[in-house]
Amino acid sequence: MISTNIVGYLGPRGTHSEDVCSNYYLEKKWTFQPYSTIDTCIRAVASGDIQECIVPIENSLEGSINITLDTLAHEVDLYIQKEVVWQIHNHLLTKSVNEEIHTIVSHAQPLAQCRHYLTKHYPSAQLKAVESTVEAVRIVASGAKNHAAIANINASKLYNMNVLARDIQDHPQNCTRFVILGRQPLEYAKGDYKTSIVCRIRGDKPGSLFHLLQELATNNINLVRIESRPARTELGEYIFFMDMEGNITDANVQCALKALKQKSLWFKNLGSYIVCKNNIL
Amino acid sequence: MISTNIVGYLGPRGTHSEDVCSNYYLEKKWTFQPYSTIDTCIRAVASGDIQECIVPIENSLEGSINITLDTLAHEVDLYIQKEVVWQIHNHLLTKSVNEEIHTIVSHAQPLAQCRHYLTKHYPSAQLKAVESTVEAVRIVASGAKNHAAIANINASKLYNMNVLARDIQDHPQNCTRFVILGRQPLEYAKGDYKTSIVCRIRGDKPGSLFHLLQELATNNINLVRIESRPARTELGEYIFFMDMEGNITDANVQCALKALKQKSLWFKNLGSYIVCKNNIL
Repeated sequence: MISTNIVGYLGPRGTHSEDVCSNYYLEKKWTFQPYSTIDTCIRAVASGDIQECIVPIENSLEGSINITLDTLAHEVDLYIQKEVVWQIHNHLLTKSVNEEIHTIVSHAQPLAQCRHYLTKHYPSAQLKAVESTVEAVRIVASGAKNHAAIANINASKLYNMNVLARDIQDHPQNCTRFVILGRQPLEYAKGDYKTSIVCRIRGDKPGSLFHLLQELATNNINLVRIESRPARTELGEYIFFMDMEGNITDANVQCALKALKQKSLWFKNLGSYIVCKNNIL
Repeated sequence: MISTNIVGYLGPRGTHSEDVCSNYYLEKKWTFQPYSTIDTCIRAVASGDIQECIVPIENSLEGSINITLDTLAHEVDLYIQKEVVWQIHNHLLTKSVNEEIHTIVSHAQPLAQCRHYLTKHYPSAQLKAVESTVEAVRIVASGAKNHAAIANINASKLYNMNVLARDIQDHPQNCTRFVILGRQPLEYAKGDYKTSIVCRIRGDKPGSLFHLLQELATNNINLVRIESRPARTELGEYIFFMDMEGNITDANVQCALKALKQKSLWFKNLGSYIVCKNNIL
């Protein structure tokens, strides 16, 4: 049975993914279904357990979310329905107001993103990486002495925490791109679109990638992103994810993709979709 | 003071990095210096605390080691001296021979690399990710009940463990590329070389990357790898790591790199170096 009006996201409650999910599905009154890993969440759409999912695909500081790319390429046949750019805010949270801080706990990514702030304000504190920001908040909320957590504001509300410092990330431009995935390609509507594909080419000849990009350049298509991932055959063999401006219904995009497909050993269309930037300040 | 004949690696004792380190520096009688993170290890070479380091840069299944690329691009000015391709063997280890297994513990990467094996042989076991394979072995060795660890053979010897199953990785082709980094470019000697660079180009014009790759194609240079990483300015701005065949002293490589540099907003030569494949079966 195919389940409709259910959207999957990377749980548990209080994650950035849940924030984004609320923003896009609360009004539509869909049911939210948390998953403990990104790949099980994506596979649940492919199997029909849920209708759509919303998963992170790239962060502006840390780069690609590899499990999302690899699952899209190797494990499922899904289409991107929408891209959501979401600004990430990291806050320093404690249980009580006046406690001295000896240990700061969070996921490895926020710890890395706040490194300069932490070195300046807490040079002797021990940094401890755990599996998620919500897990970090749980540890501090459950009474770990002299601990602070780095997490988003919803997690702090969920566990009734004290916000010791706001927006402590080193770079103001800390955004994550999320994609909404579904089983069918999006129907075309007016607006600015991007189109994503993934392909594999012969890696043993000079200029293979160059000849592929030539098709985009001659069709005047702007390649906004290219990302290589292992082909999983042997070291030195890659697949390429490409994001370009335009819609699959545009004549020049159609023409370029046809040529790309012909020059590839393997080719997959990941869909044409609109870009949303909702919470960007 | 500049310290000589000391090589840094990602510790603690028993890691794959230590295996590779032993293979290349034991005969030379250098001192091994373990570091708890890859970036502190690389920075120790830049500051002169140690003479060289050996760090992972890419895995054939999991892709780039981002912290290595980012540190090389943004934090230090070092040169690759040698590339070492190392085959990774994952074994299932227990403390006693006949214990039932309820929990399997390892670093997230080996757990992912053995997923099919684990699903087939231990469908109901809980998988637990910890910070390193050595930490996983420590947990099992210290007496955690009904636990098994996934790690390499040296870690099993170090903690006197029982090898329950050998080579349980799903793909036989599981290799990691390591690079040896030093403060000076390598002096040229005979052999097959690769050259690595990293650069940033204008991302807002169609065909920017295409025009860059054109310089390699017209000089008949094989691009063996291209990897994009965030430029850390804003989402959608990238730097490109490129590995090509040839040595900086070759006329065509010199010519291409000169043109690449001219077309880049920012450019860095990461060195020309020999490739070694020592333990490949």
